[in-house]
Amino acid sequence: MTELLSESHADMVAEYADVLQIGTRNAQNFQLLIAAAKTGKPVLLKRGLSMKIEEWLLAGEYILAHENPNLMLCERGIRTFETYTRNTLDLTAVPIVKQESHVPVVVDPSQGVGRADLVFAVCKGAVAMGADALLIEVHPNPSKAWSDGAQQLTLDGFSRLMTELKPFIHAAGRE
Amino acid sequence: MTELLSESHADMVAEYADVLQIGTRNAQNFQLLIAAAKTGKPVLLKRGLSMKIEEWLLAGEYILAHENPNLMLCERGIRTFETYTRNTLDLTAVPIVKQESHVPVVVDPSQGVGRADLVFAVCKGAVAMGADALLIEVHPNPSKAWSDGAQQLTLDGFSRLMTELKPFIHAAGRE
Amino acid sequence: MTELLSESHADMVAEYADVLQIGTRNAQNFQLLIAAAKTGKPVLLKRGLSMKIEEWLLAGEYILAHENPNLMLCERGIRTFETYTRNTLDLTAVPIVKQESHVPVVVDPSQGVGRADLVFAVCKGAVAMGADALLIEVHPNPSKAWSDGAQQLTLDGFSRLMTELKPFIHAAGRE
Amino acid sequence: MTELLSESHADMVAEYADVLQIGTRNAQNFQLLIAAAKTGKPVLLKRGLSMKIEEWLLAGEYILAHENPNLMLCERGIRTFETYTRNTLDLTAVPIVKQESHVPVVVDPSQGVGRADLVFAVCKGAVAMGADALLIEVHPNPSKAWSDGAQQLTLDGFSRLMTELKPFIHAAGRE
Repeated sequence: MTELLSESHADMVAEYADVLQIGTRNAQNFQLLIAAAKTGKPVLLKRGLSMKIEEWLLAGEYILAHENPNLMLCERGIRTFETYTRNTLDLTAVPIVKQESHVPVVVDPSQGVGRADLVFAVCKGAVAMGADALLIEVHPNPSKAWSDGAQQLTLDGFSRLMTELKPFIHAAGRE
Repeated sequence: MTELLSESHADMVAEYADVLQIGTRNAQNFQLLIAAAKTGKPVLLKRGLSMKIEEWLLAGEYILAHENPNLMLCERGIRTFETYTRNTLDLTAVPIVKQESHVPVVVDPSQGVGRADLVFAVCKGAVAMGADALLIEVHPNPSKAWSDGAQQLTLDGFSRLMTELKPFIHAAGRE
Repeated sequence: MTELLSESHADMVAEYADVLQIGTRNAQNFQLLIAAAKTGKPVLLKRGLSMKIEEWLLAGEYILAHENPNLMLCERGIRTFETYTRNTLDLTAVPIVKQESHVPVVVDPSQGVGRADLVFAVCKGAVAMGADALLIEVHPNPSKAWSDGAQQLTLDGFSRLMTELKPFIHAAGRE
Repeated sequence: MTELLSESHADMVAEYADVLQIGTRNAQNFQLLIAAAKTGKPVLLKRGLSMKIEEWLLAGEYILAHENPNLMLCERGIRTFETYTRNTLDLTAVPIVKQESHVPVVVDPSQGVGRADLVFAVCKGAVAMGADALLIEVHPNPSKAWSDGAQQLTLDGFSRLMTELKPFIHAAGRE
């Protein structure tokens, strides 16, 4: 998945990518939302940095209204005064979006907290609260990553996470 | 538990209550923190409305430094721009406080989201993320409650919640 | 001025408009910033709803770096917990941007506070703090406006404002 | 002026101080507000870090309702995501409080921005927007101050500020 930045890019990205991701800073770039919808590819719409849940759902309507039913909404943290984490992950948004809408809800703990050591706990919470998918950053060598290394799991870490998550997935009644 | 408002009240409340709760608006009322510590009773310190995690931990030190080791820190939501919920519950604070400190972490979903229909999902998330206890508002008839009725569970609802929580408690390796 | 939404629109708008305005929700739509810069027209860049001043200055660099020196930065309020006003106008941003940069600073009290009755006081404050220009919404009949009527001045109100502003403009050493 | 922290301190402070100041972290310590009111001394109530204007006005009622009419409300910045300044000074609160209430409004630029270099501009803005008084930190040698040195003016700086402020005071029709 790649962050789209303009209409003319949407078609090109759609040729190669399975899912088009709209980044947090373009979550209300409505021309881009329409262009992404028209490619027919699934669209993952990240919540804007200071977007109310209502505004996020309405931005999603730009996808649905352009005849693309394959919308996913992705909680990735909102901007608050707290500086311990990169953003403040609003996990309560998960059950709210499930209640207000029929679209799948994805949680991005990596961007949400910005620290690999917290990703495990956040993934468990997201699953328990009803998330349909997780977007987890993994890198064979995070310390060499070109960006966002501090929030990336190693391959081993990812494998361990999958094992630790299983009981919570079962508890949530998912398979 | 009752919200304490001044030094002279701490001793009186301690006569009758098992735990002294310091409310969010007094979380940095340092004289009160000291007075509560000195009663020798367990103290539950709510996070202030716009308190950074670091400030919350430091406020807790006022209890510990006055020879009262029975401190609990309670996440109850911070104030953000989002208006769908009463506050924005910062569940990531749970693993952070567990990591930075040895004190038990309590989550208050009722105040955090302000809506009974979201309490179930939030309790599951809190347990999955490592919370040591939950502070849940229950009322035999929430529509007749003197305050905060919208966020209170009925007795039946509470009983159902306990049943639904069990698999998550097991998944988290707690009993 | 019209809010631009995609690259292909920039040229068309530039044919008719004297200034291209980048709206708050597209303040980090970098492809649009580049497209706007390339038209050669002056660009007014609104601060994003939750943009730090540093990010705003850096977004402005997209204009300057594409050989368009005619950049203006416009403070229009950030998103906070306060609900009395539509946004929280961060007037301190005016002297900060003047200090960190050489570009003119514009203040938009209409969007910033969302209420016509507060526009007078805010304009005076903005001028006193060094604003180079004001962006004020005026409508012959605000109650009939298609949008944002609550924050618009009447023609009479605008004329009165200009009279009341004069002493502050003089006090600020401007003409 | 000294920040009061408990009821028993109010009377002692009132013996020596001309004005009792309630600090931002105790702005909703209602027992303290009542104790301060009862001393009969003027009370300066700082706005809480994340207090809505409505809550601030209501906290002020605790003073007025206890037969102390000498209340001043002091805007000192709210907590937001912006980190360039120590807090985000909400100068729009000045005309709002003037409109909603009859009490004098004080602005504290020193705490609001936390940087001496911005105090000049903020004082001018505050005066232009209708502030009745300014609370400015001054120190003969800020670099040796026990706390908050970064936001303190020197004696010379203060004297220069008074000169620069005069035209704005005149423009605002005050003497």
